[in-house]
Formats: sequence, C-alpha cells, structure tokens
Amino acid sequence: MAGNTIGTLFKVTTFGESHGEALGCIVDGVPPNMALCEEDLQIDLDRRRPNGSRYTTARREEDKVQILSGVFEGKTTGTSIGLLIKNSDQRSQDYDQIKDRFRPNHADYTYQHKYGIRDYRGGGRASARETAMRVAAGAIAKKYLKEQFGIKVNAFLSQMGSIKVAPQYTANLEKMDWQQVNNNPFFCPDEKAIPQFDELIRNLKKEGNSIGAKITVIAENVPVGLGEPVFDRLDADLAHALMSINAVKGVEIGDGFDVIEQTGTQHRDEITPQGFKSNHAGGILGGISSGQPIIAHIALKPTSSIAISGDTVDINNQAVEIVTKGRHDPCVGIRAVPIAEAMMAIVLLDHLLRFKAQCK
Amino acid sequence: MAGNTIGTLFKVTTFGESHGEALGCIVDGVPPNMALCEEDLQIDLDRRRPNGSRYTTARREEDKVQILSGVFEGKTTGTSIGLLIKNSDQRSQDYDQIKDRFRPNHADYTYQHKYGIRDYRGGGRASARETAMRVAAGAIAKKYLKEQFGIKVNAFLSQMGSIKVAPQYTANLEKMDWQQVNNNPFFCPDEKAIPQFDELIRNLKKEGNSIGAKITVIAENVPVGLGEPVFDRLDADLAHALMSINAVKGVEIGDGFDVIEQTGTQHRDEITPQGFKSNHAGGILGGISSGQPIIAHIALKPTSSIAISGDTVDINNQAVEIVTKGRHDPCVGIRAVPIAEAMMAIVLLDHLLRFKAQCK
Amino acid sequence: MAGNTIGTLFKVTTFGESHGEALGCIVDGVPPNMALCEEDLQIDLDRRRPNGSRYTTARREEDKVQILSGVFEGKTTGTSIGLLIKNSDQRSQDYDQIKDRFRPNHADYTYQHKYGIRDYRGGGRASARETAMRVAAGAIAKKYLKEQFGIKVNAFLSQMGSIKVAPQYTANLEKMDWQQVNNNPFFCPDEKAIPQFDELIRNLKKEGNSIGAKITVIAENVPVGLGEPVFDRLDADLAHALMSINAVKGVEIGDGFDVIEQTGTQHRDEITPQGFKSNHAGGILGGISSGQPIIAHIALKPTSSIAISGDTVDINNQAVEIVTKGRHDPCVGIRAVPIAEAMMAIVLLDHLLRFKAQCK
Amino acid sequence: MAGNTIGTLFKVTTFGESHGEALGCIVDGVPPNMALCEEDLQIDLDRRRPNGSRYTTARREEDKVQILSGVFEGKTTGTSIGLLIKNSDQRSQDYDQIKDRFRPNHADYTYQHKYGIRDYRGGGRASARETAMRVAAGAIAKKYLKEQFGIKVNAFLSQMGSIKVAPQYTANLEKMDWQQVNNNPFFCPDEKAIPQFDELIRNLKKEGNSIGAKITVIAENVPVGLGEPVFDRLDADLAHALMSINAVKGVEIGDGFDVIEQTGTQHRDEITPQGFKSNHAGGILGGISSGQPIIAHIALKPTSSIAISGDTVDINNQAVEIVTKGRHDPCVGIRAVPIAEAMMAIVLLDHLLRFKAQCK
Repeated sequence: MAGNTIGTLFKVTTFGESHGEALGCIVDGVPPNMALCEEDLQIDLDRRRPNGSRYTTARREEDKVQILSGVFEGKTTGTSIGLLIKNSDQRSQDYDQIKDRFRPNHADYTYQHKYGIRDYRGGGRASARETAMRVAAGAIAKKYLKEQFGIKVNAFLSQMGSIKVAPQYTANLEKMDWQQVNNNPFFCPDEKAIPQFDELIRNLKKEGNSIGAKITVIAENVPVGLGEPVFDRLDADLAHALMSINAVKGVEIGDGFDVIEQTGTQHRDEITPQGFKSNHAGGILGGISSGQPIIAHIALKPTSSIAISGDTVDINNQAVEIVTKGRHDPCVGIRAVPIAEAMMAIVLLDHLLRFKAQCK
Repeated sequence: MAGNTIGTLFKVTTFGESHGEALGCIVDGVPPNMALCEEDLQIDLDRRRPNGSRYTTARREEDKVQILSGVFEGKTTGTSIGLLIKNSDQRSQDYDQIKDRFRPNHADYTYQHKYGIRDYRGGGRASARETAMRVAAGAIAKKYLKEQFGIKVNAFLSQMGSIKVAPQYTANLEKMDWQQVNNNPFFCPDEKAIPQFDELIRNLKKEGNSIGAKITVIAENVPVGLGEPVFDRLDADLAHALMSINAVKGVEIGDGFDVIEQTGTQHRDEITPQGFKSNHAGGILGGISSGQPIIAHIALKPTSSIAISGDTVDINNQAVEIVTKGRHDPCVGIRAVPIAEAMMAIVLLDHLLRFKAQCK
Repeated sequence: MAGNTIGTLFKVTTFGESHGEALGCIVDGVPPNMALCEEDLQIDLDRRRPNGSRYTTARREEDKVQILSGVFEGKTTGTSIGLLIKNSDQRSQDYDQIKDRFRPNHADYTYQHKYGIRDYRGGGRASARETAMRVAAGAIAKKYLKEQFGIKVNAFLSQMGSIKVAPQYTANLEKMDWQQVNNNPFFCPDEKAIPQFDELIRNLKKEGNSIGAKITVIAENVPVGLGEPVFDRLDADLAHALMSINAVKGVEIGDGFDVIEQTGTQHRDEITPQGFKSNHAGGILGGISSGQPIIAHIALKPTSSIAISGDTVDINNQAVEIVTKGRHDPCVGIRAVPIAEAMMAIVLLDHLLRFKAQCK
Repeated sequence: MAGNTIGTLFKVTTFGESHGEALGCIVDGVPPNMALCEEDLQIDLDRRRPNGSRYTTARREEDKVQILSGVFEGKTTGTSIGLLIKNSDQRSQDYDQIKDRFRPNHADYTYQHKYGIRDYRGGGRASARETAMRVAAGAIAKKYLKEQFGIKVNAFLSQMGSIKVAPQYTANLEKMDWQQVNNNPFFCPDEKAIPQFDELIRNLKKEGNSIGAKITVIAENVPVGLGEPVFDRLDADLAHALMSINAVKGVEIGDGFDVIEQTGTQHRDEITPQGFKSNHAGGILGGISSGQPIIAHIALKPTSSIAISGDTVDINNQAVEIVTKGRHDPCVGIRAVPIAEAMMAIVLLDHLLRFKAQCK
C-alpha cells in the first residue's frame, strides 16, 4: 500500500483511474519564485496526448491541466502544487466484456488477485492514462532544471520492432536535432525511418497486433555530483523511475547490456584535461553524475490490448477467449517518449535538490 | 545525502569503506521469533568472498560477520539487528599511487568532485567490498522468505564476455540444478561452459584486462500480489535494488530488451485454468507479482581496475597515465551472483510485509 | 521542501491555499473493499465547518468534498484516493491591507522570509483552512478503524481560557457521553460549562480579542502492539501529528506534564489479571499501545487574527500598526476538535497497518 | 516494524539492547569536510553517562564510542558514519527475576505482547541505554550546527518533583550561564536549587521511590526559515523527536500549555524593526523558525524501576508482586538533558539541510 509517491525532496504523488472522474497529482518541493502557468505543462501533455493521427489511439482526450495551488500571481510559492485533469470522452461501455475476464499481458489478473476488487473500466489505475500526471509533474521539473541549471532532458524513439534509427543519429547524442525529433508523430530523429515506422504501424493495425519499442533518454548539462550512494545512486533511482513506467521491461544506463561483451579497455572512458574521451558509462560513475550527458535506454513491451483472440480465464478461473476492443495504440512506446523525459527530469531535480543540501 | 538506506518495512542501512575499520549494517523490520545465528549469514558471505581461487582476487578476507543485537537466545526479537564485519588484510599502501589521480571507469572522479574529499584506499565507500553487508542482510531476508513462504531466490552467471550458458539451461528456469550452480566458482549451471569461462579469465589475467558479465536471478513460489503501483511497483523496486549494485549497467524483467522486437501475440502470456502458458513477463504484470517465477537479468561492466595503462588526469586536472595495481577480479560479475540474490530477496521481503499490511 | 505528506503505509498528502482554487488531498494506503462515499467524509467536514453560529467565523464555506478516484461502485479499490474541495466565498479584498505587513503570531513573517514570496490572501497555505483535508482523510481512517477493529476516536474541548470542564466528566473518559459532546457548538461534555464558554466568547468578540484552549483526544479499543520503537513510537508519531495542527503549542500523552511532580508509586499503572488499575500512561508504554485507551491532550494558542491594534513591521522592516480584519474564530480550539480526532486516527491506522505487516 | 530511523537528509538509525553485545548507530547525511574525532562525541556521552555519583545509577559503563567509517584523515567524507559502543559491566543475573513478569510502567508488557518475545535483560531495546547512540549522533549534529552556523543547542533541568529552578534563571534564556549548568550533576542553573534536588534524591533513594522532571531545551542563532509545512513543520518534528525519548510524556514549544489561558494580545509576539518584543511562540511561527531562539520543554515520568513492591502479572497473567532490583536512577530526567539536546540538534540539522536544498 501507499506506493503512489516518488521522490525525497521533489516529491510527486498521483491518483486517478482511466475512466474515473479525474486524474490528479501533488507536486511537492518545487522551489519558490519560478514563473509557472498551465501552458508550461500543457506543452508536454499535448506531446503525450493521442493526437488523432492514425499512429495512436482514436480516443480524444483534451488532457487540459489545471493548477489548483502553489502558484500565486504567476510564480511558485514553495508550497505543494495541486494539478487536476478531468476525464472526458469515457466510453465505459466498451469495457463491459472484460469485467469478468483477465486480458493476457494486462494488470487485470494481478489487480484482481491483490485487491479482490478492480475498476475494470479502461484498465482503471493500471491504464497508461495515469502517466499524464507524470508528464505534468515532469514538465515542472524540466522547466526548473532548464531555467536554473541549463539542464535539458530529451528523448526519442530509437527502435520499433526490428526497425532502428540509423547509427549516425545515435552516435553523437549531443548533436541530436531535437526539433526534428519533435516535429513527427514518432519522435524520430531519422527521416528515413519514419515511413518504415508508418508502414509497420499500418500493418499491425490491419492484423490487430502490436509491437515493442525502445526509447533513448538524454540529459545534458548535468553537473557532476548528483546521486547518493550506496542505495540512492543516480543510476538506481533512474532505473526505478523508468521501470515504473507502464510497459517498460528493461532499463540501461550508458552501454547497458552491451557491457557484457566489453573488456575493461573497451569500456573505460579515459579522461583528459579536456574531459572524458568517451561516454560508455552514460554519464554516471559510482552512482554519481560525472558531468557527461546522462544516457538511458528503455524497452517497452508491445501493447497488451490487441484485437487478435487469445486464451485466458474468467474471474471463476474458467477458460474463455478474449479480444480486446476499444481504441488502443499499436505501439505504446511512441507516447512514452515524453513520459520517459518526465521521469528522468523528476529524478534529476530530486537529486539536484539533495545535492544542494550538501553544498556550502 | 543520506542514501544508505533501502526499504520501507524491511529496511537495510549500511556503512563502511574498503579499508576502514569495519563494515556494518542495521537490518530493521525483521519479523520476531525467527531462528537466526551468524552461520546463517556466513554461508552467503562465503559464497561472495574471494576464495583464493585464480578466478577472483587474491585478497584474503575472512568476512566474519557478528550479530550485535536483535537476536535473543537464538531468535529474532523484532528489534533492529546490528551486523559487523571487521576489516583485515588491508594493504593500503597499494593505493598510495591513486591518491591523487582518478582511475577511469571508477568512482574516484565523481566522489572527489561531489564531496571534495575521498577515502581513496581501495575505492573507499565505492568499493564492491560494501556489498558484503548487502549479502549479510539479504541472507536474513532469504531465510525468512524460505521458511515462512517457501520463496526461494537464486541466481547464476548466464554470460561472460561472449560466452553464454547453453540455451537448454535457461529455457526452463524452474528446473535449474542449483546444486550444480553452487558447486563451481563461476555459479554456472552449464558444465561445458565452465572450462571456457576458465580460459577466458586466464587470458584476461595474462593481459591484465577484464570482462563484463550477465547474471540471471529467479525467485520461485512468490505469491500473487506483491508490488505497490504506481511508483513502488515490484519491477521498479527490483530495478532500483539491482541497479544499485556496483558495476551494474542494465536491468531486465522477464524478456527485457527482447520485447522491442516482439509482437503482442508473441509477448502476451496467455492464461489457462491450469496457469500461464508462458512467462515472457518475468512474473510481474502491472507492477504486481503474478504468482509465476520472478525473473530478472542484470548486465555488469568489466572490472574497472585493470593492469593496462590508460589516460587520465590527476587531482589538478593534469594529464597522467594510470595502471591499477592491487588484487582485483577480472570479472566482477562472478562474485555479484550472491549480491544479486540478496538484493532481490531484500525487495521481496519488503513487499511481502507491505502486502501483509493490506490483507485482512 | 516536500513536507506535505504524513504516514508510512497510510499516507496523506495535501495541497491548497485558503483563497486558492481548491484544497485537495491524496489518501494512499486505504485497504480495498471498504464501503466509502462522500457523505462519510462530509459528516466530519461539517463538524469542522464554520456553522454560522456566533461562536465561530461568519465565513460561509460549503466544504463540499468530492471523491475523484480510488472508489469503484461504492467500494475502495486499494488505489490512491483523490479528494477535492473547491473554494468559494473568497473575499480576498479583505486581505489587501496585510499584503505588505506581517501579522504578529501569524506565519506571514516566516513564510515571507523562507520562500521570498507568499500568498497573503487569508494566510495562504498557513491558514487553518488547510485542515479541512486532514479532516476528510481522517474520516476515512476513522471509518476503517471503527468498522474493522471497533476502534473509536473522539475528542472534546476540555478547557477554554481558565474555564475547565468539570472533573467528573474527565475522570472516566470511557464513560464519556459523546452524543452530548457533539450536540453543542463547543464539543463540550459539561452542560454547565457551555454558558460560560458562550459568555467568554461573546466578551472576546466585543473586545476583538481571542483565547487559547485545550482539547482531549481519546481512542478506545486500540489493540496492544501499535508503535515501532525506538523512533516511530506511537507516542512520538502522535506528538508529531498533533503538533502539526495549526496553533498547537503542546502535546501530552496520558498525565503529560503532571508526571513531573509524580513519584514512581503514584505514576505506575499496576497490573492485575483483570487489567491495569489505572491509566496514567495514556495507553502507551515504551512507545507501544498497551490495550488501554490512548489519551492525548493538546494546547492551542489564541487565534492570531484579532481586531486589537498591535505593533509590527512591513515587508521593508518599517514599523507599522496592524488590525486584522476579516472573519475569524475567537477561539481556534473549538473547530480543532474534529481535526485532532482526524490526526489521531491517521496515525493509528498507519500503525495498525504496520503492525499487521509484522503479524503472521 | 522498521522504526529505528529518524530524519530525511540527516538520518540516524540505531540498534542495540541494554545487555547485548554492543550499541550502534549509522549517521547518514553528515556533510563532508568537517573535522571529526571520537573525542567530539565522547564529551556528550560522558555528560549522559552515569558518573558514579549518588545522584544516578551505580552502574559503571565506559560508553567508549568508536567511529568505524565515514571519517578519513580526521575529516568527514560525506559517506555514512558507523558508530559503536561495546557493552560491558552487564550484570544480567540481576534481571532473572523479571524474566517472566511485567514491571508496571515499563515496556515489558507491550514488548512481550507485540513481539511474542523479548530480551528482558535490563529492559532490552526499551532501556534508556539505547539513548547513548542518540547522544553520539546528536554530538555530530551539534558540532556541525555550531561550526557552520553558530547554532548552539543547550538544555537544563528546570524542575524535579515540585522543586523548580528560580524564575530569574528562566526569564531570559539567552543569558543562561551554561557553564554553571554543566558543572553540577543536575544540569541546574540555580545554585540554590541544587541542595534541594540533592535532598529530594537522597530521600527517594531511601524509600526506593522515584520522581518526574522537566527539561528545557534552547537553540540559539537558528536562522529564519527552517521547517517544511504542513506536516514536516519544525515544531511537529521537534515534538516527534523529543517525545521519542524514553519516559517523555509531554512536549511544549514556547509557552506550551500556558497558552490555554492566554488571550491573543497576551500571546502574540509583536514585531519591531529591531526584532520581536517577546518569544511566547518559542521561535516557531506556522511551523517555521522565526529567527528567535527555539524553546521547548519536556516532561519526564518518574523512573519505572523502583524498589517498592507493586502489583503486576506474570507471563501467564497470574497475579504477582514485583520489586525492581538493579541499579537505577531515581530521576531519569537528569540524564535526559544531553539526550534532549541531541534530539533537538538532530532535527535542526535535518531541517537546515532541507532548507539549504531550497535556497539558490
């Protein structure tokens, strides 16, 4: 119980079900005197929002966020900030058929067994809709990081199915063209990959199937010193935050699983008076930021809700078949790009504040 | 600051530097009336300990653990348990040459910049020696999980460099021969892989280099219901705990990064009245245990301390070369097997207690 | 920063300023399958609400609470519960004159110096209006405690100024007539004291002054075993929760400050096979509930906002005089009765859940 | 479970039973580069220690503290500090007779019922001996507060039984002669009260009885801004920390329970350009330090262990009589003076670090 809070000094607590009255969030620990308005949050919420394009769900949500406290005359006051997004366009009737049966790969089975009750409408609390509040809270963190420290947090879709962004785009992340990333619905830096992604999604839609994806998240201008060993290491807290995103099954820092086959001489980032020669470490050494860009990768499983019939059981453990109707993204990875940015920003701000506490 | 505690109800706090007086740990939240003695902890400490074999460091440490509180007449009392391991065999003079220069891939650089001071002897707090206390605390968790719930946590070395354990050993983890895993210095279930690992380590020793590794951790008999969405999800907390282990750069739950190329029909674990048909999810759905085995994989970078000269800077940012002397494992992944078990056990017990709080 | 959360397993996080858009709260850790509706919370909110009587402020607030999540088809689901109360009847213009000057005894001075900015309207976040959400959250805790464990939490006004409730009413708290307490605007068990309280308040209103008060809080049917020494003792956590209520300057458990003059033989509650002979300890021994009623007393300072001119400084540290206008209770202690109940209930439920985690 | 940690950024975790192997503590969050040695801690430990005088217990403990980590070449490194005090002079046989019966006013009853087992020797974990580690950790906090911020934390015995320190000593706490306080075994600023305390203790010893006491704690030079409303208010956290001390039954901030009879005009501390005119608030407004001295009072119950026979039950709920033998202080309040200082210092440093995190 009580698992809906993240952070120590910058603390985010959320509530809300997919088809409930509203989603909400309390963002506690925002430093005072930062200019903040709803539009600052709306930008990222709109990036996460299903945009009516054929790539994502047809569900139309306004995701209009309200700031209810903690801001006075356009500035943060240092007190807790209450955020609210009212739910609209809820076609709950779509979900009547899953009331009594567990969709494979979904949280239906575990929520029912854990709590003995579940809000089955749209996945209830387990719906990715919950992540809207993460994006809103993350937008506050991103704004503070950028304005006060010049820290920029960005992410892009680096792979969908077997289609990868071309190596030249990922070889030097510091030269990434973020405008290009954000002007296409796939958050893709590689123009040539876009039509391939497009075709893959079309085909999956036709067959009613879904696909996994990989996202890369980068934070630039992070000062050396963030992270509190041995348990609240920066990498450990990032792994926690990123793995807490719906559908994420893997987290890498820097070279991640590639390190298995690396030798010590290949992996170590040698140092010169001008800086590190390479960044295999992903900007974190010993759990503390090194001053290099922080780089993380996450793997997202294919959307659970698919239109191809599968075997499952009902609430009485009787064998049944299930086809998930409703409006669903064939690839949840796409919309997870701003969510991944948000979670990294939340962790970085929390650690930045903890680091400031230590400084003279 | 204050990052040396993990857990909510089962709480582990540690201290100790590689070449300080002692390592210590406070294990808080151990349920009362469990039989416990030092030997229960020593078993796992001995598994982690450099054993004098040619595969690991030549340093000889007794790692003899003392229980200083919380146990009365052989049983836990419910109060906090103090653990202590005195350091011995400290050849601090080995480290004089790194006093003023930063070993690449090490935490020297970040500790110095974060704190403005560092205990450079043997890596100080950033040394893997710190993990001895994790293993001791984890042994308590493992004992309780096993005795009270039949939950068994085990790990094995699944890959070193490009050498992988043969697929038949990993295809059905529930049939793993753990006795075989634990009777060889590589924690390897595949007899044929052992001589290959052996040869790889010999060659690396010769050239003074090191190599990465992959470890697989499995928990069996975990009941459905552990995990507290949306942030204290079981997978998120496991990712945190496993990524907090020295040298870990990646964490996967279930199929991990393989999910990127999977379709929804491939990935979803269909359900029958007899149980799940497969376990791509790694035993966790929606952040909650499903009753299937929990499966995680971690990637460990090659040992940072190598005998091949590399470029770095000294404390005045002057270019220097460095060769790490001292006694070091060519593959830290080997000794990390019991550490990974410990961290998974710590997280599972914490969540088990949180789950019990919810139950009637 | 980030001080707006209380609790470990039953966790309450709040936001909201006196004259902002709304007050809100996230209640996390409510066990599933408890019947819950808005009316359950409204009962206590109405007890706290200024009721238009001459004893409390003339401000009319509906304090209508909405449940936005965590309840499905009338039952709690185990997920976080979002609560919202919209602010109405905000006469912010009343506060223009205090924009630039610090009301003595208020938080104006400290908020301004801490944050460099403050929402001065009605005291902003420091207003007692914030406590509405505590009462709402506490009502959930009270309901669960009562239904699942028969634990009843009640409070009454035991003193206002020098007027005390007659000794016969406080000698045996277990025989208190709670119906009598709740059917008068002073939460007073002593019918004869009511007209005296009434007269005191009338006189204070006339002169524009205010008065302190004492509240006694009792929890009955609390099982033995709640409290987690040595820091999360039940008495320590109660002291924290009760002292966190606006205007509270003192907290006592059991005999409280009277123990200073007691001898060991006077104070100790001897035990017989039928139970304790007395309850000087207030139901807590060694930080753990003893099975006897939990008894606490709190002292509340006189209302800070008074109509008698006083000396202060403005934001530029210039000497000015101030008279607080607006609608204010002459005795904040009265309305604090349901707040004190709420805080005790929140702590008890948190500890009850922690205790359950320990049990087999 | 897991109640042995206090603090957010400055975190203290303790272990140890009265008659176990050792007491220990992990102090996490000590800023780096502070000079620190064992003698710094020993000074306060010696103030707490039974000194062989007739005023306190005849038990002789060396209470020799060891620093096991976190300090390198005489300076703190920013990593967790492990502290250890070995127990000696344990006459456990003294306690055999209480093995099966519950001493009234003690924690015997509640520990046995909570955990189903208890280390009965000397009260086990519930013994005031546990507070030695608080004093050691508090000494670190005091040193940092004093050296870095000029904050001084001191306490004195203000009342024992009905004997109070004369008013002139408490009227202006900022002029207190701390040298006088610390050069007598009663921590008493009033020379005339000392022989009265002395006589009271002698008489109590003769009759085998005990007495309560009151301690006043003051922190000077505390900057404005410490405290994180609405729950982690400075007063609330002080109440928590002070109430967590063994035998404490009441906590007051500033005028405490006297506020009940005060009017608004009496209580409010008016402000002038030169500062506050008075300090009824005890240096805290709205949960945030005001820049005035922080003042708190605590009430300590009479020692539980007395030599006068009393009624109780044994572990089988059979009526028995009990006389507590062993070596016990007739007034636990005396030795609690340095403990109270320690707890206030721990809270202040924690909040100072949290405040620094907020600052630019």
